[in-house]
Amino acid sequence: WQQREVQLATLNQLPAETQDGKHILLGANIEVPEETDAVIAHGADGIGLFRSEFLFMQPGGVSDEEQQYEAYTRVVKSVEGKPVTIRTLDVGGDKAIPGFEQHSEKNPILGWRAVRFCFSRTDLFKIQLRAILRASVHGDLRIMFPMISGVEEVDRALELLEEARSECREKGQPFNEDIPVGIMIEVPSAALTSDILARKVDFFSIGTNDLIQYTIAVDRGNERVAYLYEPFHPGVLRLIKMVIDNAHSAGIPVNMCGEMAGDPIATVILLGMGLDVFSMSSFSIPEVKQIIRSTSMMEAEELVGEIMEMKSYREIDEHVRGWMNAGYNLEGYTG
Amino acid sequence: WQQREVQLATLNQLPAETQDGKHILLGANIEVPEETDAVIAHGADGIGLFRSEFLFMQPGGVSDEEQQYEAYTRVVKSVEGKPVTIRTLDVGGDKAIPGFEQHSEKNPILGWRAVRFCFSRTDLFKIQLRAILRASVHGDLRIMFPMISGVEEVDRALELLEEARSECREKGQPFNEDIPVGIMIEVPSAALTSDILARKVDFFSIGTNDLIQYTIAVDRGNERVAYLYEPFHPGVLRLIKMVIDNAHSAGIPVNMCGEMAGDPIATVILLGMGLDVFSMSSFSIPEVKQIIRSTSMMEAEELVGEIMEMKSYREIDEHVRGWMNAGYNLEGYTG
Ligand SMILES: [Mg+2]
Ligand SMILES: [Mg+2]
Repeated sequence: WQQREVQLATLNQLPAETQDGKHILLGANIEVPEETDAVIAHGADGIGLFRSEFLFMQPGGVSDEEQQYEAYTRVVKSVEGKPVTIRTLDVGGDKAIPGFEQHSEKNPILGWRAVRFCFSRTDLFKIQLRAILRASVHGDLRIMFPMISGVEEVDRALELLEEARSECREKGQPFNEDIPVGIMIEVPSAALTSDILARKVDFFSIGTNDLIQYTIAVDRGNERVAYLYEPFHPGVLRLIKMVIDNAHSAGIPVNMCGEMAGDPIATVILLGMGLDVFSMSSFSIPEVKQIIRSTSMMEAEELVGEIMEMKSYREIDEHVRGWMNAGYNLEGYTG
Repeated sequence: WQQREVQLATLNQLPAETQDGKHILLGANIEVPEETDAVIAHGADGIGLFRSEFLFMQPGGVSDEEQQYEAYTRVVKSVEGKPVTIRTLDVGGDKAIPGFEQHSEKNPILGWRAVRFCFSRTDLFKIQLRAILRASVHGDLRIMFPMISGVEEVDRALELLEEARSECREKGQPFNEDIPVGIMIEVPSAALTSDILARKVDFFSIGTNDLIQYTIAVDRGNERVAYLYEPFHPGVLRLIKMVIDNAHSAGIPVNMCGEMAGDPIATVILLGMGLDVFSMSSFSIPEVKQIIRSTSMMEAEELVGEIMEMKSYREIDEHVRGWMNAGYNLEGYTG
């Protein structure tokens, strides 16, 4: 183990490149600006998911536009020019925010969350959008909208962003006119219409935690049924592949920022499906990088070809673990 | 309106046949045996969904095997040889059953429901399966398992059914050895793997109420977000078409028993997608039958071809309503 730690540390300066030369980007997921040191230390290529909820949970209440602008600026300046993707407020579901109007919901995961909430609180939403726009002059900042379910919601989000742009212009506040705008694909209906949505935005980010919950109709926090939550369910894998294929047909890249992106057992499969950016906890980056550097796209694609023919998650899981053990001798990942 | 009532009444003796001669089956959904009079009176071709929950909510508690056997027998005998599809216990979600161990769940719709519950209470489940098997000698009875999410659950349900068969054999109780066995397709992962599942069962029944909730990640009982619940979301329509196509490739028929099956605005679309059985409240049967009898498969398929190219539910909804108004003058359906 000690030897492996040393090995992983030296990895930080090396790119996540497959044996046959495909360069993969490894992003970090962060919750607060203080995490950017770890991001750099673990060799991330940027921040693939900057959760903005903390700004709405400050001791003094919701951060105002200046406070948000400063927080976004601080993060984008601290990562040495690397890209930072900010997810707009993702309140609701399992993420209650104190002080916000509480609405008692029978099924919060299927409820008033994220953009659904923001579209009815455009005052709050536009403060955030303006703060992000203004911070975008300080580095490679990107905007990402969570819980998009269809094209109407993309249109509405882009419309509000356009209003925020106009407001910045009116006040003479500079911003990056070409700031990349993406959406999270975490609702099955968005995945199923990803060919349509891909023409509207600059990138996708697959949120596997929610996508899997909805696709299999299971609350993974419910111990009675959590056993059904299975990233290797063939229905989930087909959906992920569909999203990646549709994005690439439209010429846009795909990030993944759910836990699956940092799971070493899933790395080769996602690689073989063509995922462009893997975004995860900083601490998972070295292990995933090591697997990517030990694998060729050819063998990853071959593995995907094999598992896409399989009928159950058990069959797929066993096959992938067997393949990993045979090729890598990385029993730490597959135990 | 009076004239229309008379018109609809005379329809009851006529088949649900399109202008170009395709015969569609119209089933009724019932909750208690007492509804079978209405089933016959409204010209249903059988019972497409016999909900069995009432048997678990009797004043005296859960019905025993004899009581269930009698109830199933009564229904199958009362419909003049027509098929009756019994859905096995679909407890949980929005259907709490008094007296059952209550498990407080944060998101019951994504929780311990239907077969998920039955697989951990195989005692109760097998009583129901034996009662259905025994009643199957009295008519055209069929079994349907709700909330299937993948192939493991189909295998487990079939295994328990096989045990129930053995138990009947041991007791010398006769049953129909060829009783048709189907599954509900109401979880996106089941729809997405319907090609695999179709090889395991005799029929599908699409449960649109849940399928739409999961696909769009929306609790339709939550007034804050119910506006997102949209049967014409292109993601939903693609999923339904995928299920029908996969079933037909495997040579099995598809029923639909969600509210969408009884919605006159959806009739022509479902017809054009090739749906074999429409199952709905008895009272909706005449109107849906009238639409089917006024439509040709050719024009229905053409309409489906048009809407499958569209990008949003609004566009699809407007197109279908316009088409209906132009062709049918049935403003009652489209207002
Ligand atoms: Mg999410
Ligand atoms: Mg259901």
